[in-house]
Amino acid sequence: MFAERIEDLVESPVREILKVIDRPGMISFAGGLPATECFPELDLSCVNSEHLQYGPSEGDTELREHVASLLCERGLETTADRVLILSGSQQGIDLVAKLFVERGTRVSVETPTYLAALQVFDLFGAEYSGYSADNPVLGNAPLTYAIPTFQNPTGHCYSDAQRRALALACDQANSVLFEDDPYRDLVYDDCDRTPVCSYIRNSEWVYQSSFSKSYAPGLRLGYLTCSEALFPHLVRLKQAADLHSCRISQRLILSLLQQSSSRNQKLTDFYRYRRDHFEKALTRLFSDIADWQRPVGGLFFWLALRPEFSIDTRELLKRSISSGVAFMPGEPFYPKGLQAVPGLRLNFSHASPEAADKGLQILASIIRAACESRV
Amino acid sequence: MFAERIEDLVESPVREILKVIDRPGMISFAGGLPATECFPELDLSCVNSEHLQYGPSEGDTELREHVASLLCERGLETTADRVLILSGSQQGIDLVAKLFVERGTRVSVETPTYLAALQVFDLFGAEYSGYSADNPVLGNAPLTYAIPTFQNPTGHCYSDAQRRALALACDQANSVLFEDDPYRDLVYDDCDRTPVCSYIRNSEWVYQSSFSKSYAPGLRLGYLTCSEALFPHLVRLKQAADLHSCRISQRLILSLLQQSSSRNQKLTDFYRYRRDHFEKALTRLFSDIADWQRPVGGLFFWLALRPEFSIDTRELLKRSISSGVAFMPGEPFYPKGLQAVPGLRLNFSHASPEAADKGLQILASIIRAACESRV
Repeated sequence: MFAERIEDLVESPVREILKVIDRPGMISFAGGLPATECFPELDLSCVNSEHLQYGPSEGDTELREHVASLLCERGLETTADRVLILSGSQQGIDLVAKLFVERGTRVSVETPTYLAALQVFDLFGAEYSGYSADNPVLGNAPLTYAIPTFQNPTGHCYSDAQRRALALACDQANSVLFEDDPYRDLVYDDCDRTPVCSYIRNSEWVYQSSFSKSYAPGLRLGYLTCSEALFPHLVRLKQAADLHSCRISQRLILSLLQQSSSRNQKLTDFYRYRRDHFEKALTRLFSDIADWQRPVGGLFFWLALRPEFSIDTRELLKRSISSGVAFMPGEPFYPKGLQAVPGLRLNFSHASPEAADKGLQILASIIRAACESRV
Repeated sequence: MFAERIEDLVESPVREILKVIDRPGMISFAGGLPATECFPELDLSCVNSEHLQYGPSEGDTELREHVASLLCERGLETTADRVLILSGSQQGIDLVAKLFVERGTRVSVETPTYLAALQVFDLFGAEYSGYSADNPVLGNAPLTYAIPTFQNPTGHCYSDAQRRALALACDQANSVLFEDDPYRDLVYDDCDRTPVCSYIRNSEWVYQSSFSKSYAPGLRLGYLTCSEALFPHLVRLKQAADLHSCRISQRLILSLLQQSSSRNQKLTDFYRYRRDHFEKALTRLFSDIADWQRPVGGLFFWLALRPEFSIDTRELLKRSISSGVAFMPGEPFYPKGLQAVPGLRLNFSHASPEAADKGLQILASIIRAACESRV
């Protein structure tokens, strides 16, 4: 009865975890949830009745113009008429997958990579090649998916050399670069955040970002820009997907973007403090269990479990949840057919410092107990 | 470079027309645009910071419960845990197409039918069988798409016998019924609006509706319910498409739904008046040019051109737009491979009565001139 693609549509662990993190007392390191304390005040005075009517599929003109200026500031040459407003950047993945991916299409990705992107590529029948940021061999894949700035889940930020190398590899392999950049505003230390797409010379490219992390995910708003040849197709796909994005959200975001810039400073100060506190707890509790890099931006620590603590983290999650702590298991971040390294993705931005201390202590105890009982 | 499906992705005439209808002075009979005068007042007091966070893919619990009660009132037995909130009902078409349609899948539709549904089914590679409401032969199609209440574009409302016959045909052919019901609240005369899905006995089914027509399209909010076996798949597809719908929109709609019911009476009075005025002008100007049925609900008159005025309505549209009048040409409402009857879809709800009179006069003159010059 179903289309063949439905065989590849598995329940996402994100969904399963989002279901339980609302339980009273649950300490969550699971989602990429921004801190509720940082959400903006909303004011409907920017909305009038015309914004309740149908609008253009591309998005509202003023917002597209503002986004184009943001994109130019970060080094990406584009214009408002090549900006497409999205219903969150998850939608961008759906549109790009529709444009390029059919059964057997090879997609080149870092391993690990964002699990909900893999879910969409899987749905359309993708096969995968893995590449590493240090030596990006793209394996003849027509599409390359990358999160060069505060990668999800590893938190890695590509160096200038890595950015240029990826762009060159895409040009040489004639692989379309799909750069996903939702975390860029959450930056805590000096680092290069130049869009890799700005270094592309010949190949086609799509660059997308989101307002979910820096403003509010509940508004479901993101945006993309792309090389000229792709834009009309992506607009048609957008129209077929949902006609256009919520116009109230578009007005609210535009209004917030036009306000002061102090917001971003407060946001990054808040998150930097949480990151640093979180890392102290990790050093205290996990130094012998796992290895990690301190992320210079974004929302996650990626803990690679040491061989003596190697464990199926999906099994670990079940025990952890029953002890009141949620995290994201590492396995779903690996594409099918490629080797997974046991790891945990820990969000440091959502839990309070006190809750983080408590949750990490519980989590470390569970891992120790699980691995001791095994010996 | 592109996936094969992109060959079937053509520019939609809806998009092209939406681009021009904002021109000053343009009289538009084109879109399914509700009257701006009828939009509700919005008030953000129902939104607090928790609604700015990520939410469940299925939609917010309170809204799902309210929708479930609405669905039960209209005769569809369902529960809140089988309600999925959509980013407009266009998204429901995308999700259902992903679930059932792959290259060569036969979809049974009325001819003509909603062009943006055809656009999505085309994208996923559908072939078509046409059925008629009087004698629904479904041609062994695994999926049947129907708009039984105030059909788009014809405005036809199925009789009780037609509703039962379609349900029986789906049961007998084991064809999944996808019932699209966005216009049901815009009802001007007595008629049967019982969901055809409520008569299904064995087959699977999906029923969807929208808040765009009765509240505000700019909020991009709709909903579906379906038979039990389909629900988990549709939720996963929804998650992959955009994680969840805008939570501000969900709160605003819930708040409006909880308010008085006088709104709907005012809305239907307003539209009934426009319909009646529009029909008088049609009778005055088009009686010899076309045939039509007075729609008992919805937003459209469907004018079937008489043989002596038969003309390619896409060509007619170009001339009409340059004279300041937009309408929807009939051809795109016919699936590829099935015979189109020359017709025009005229929206009667958006233009003021004075603008409608003027626009219809211009349109009739253009048709007469085009057909006279031909003789």
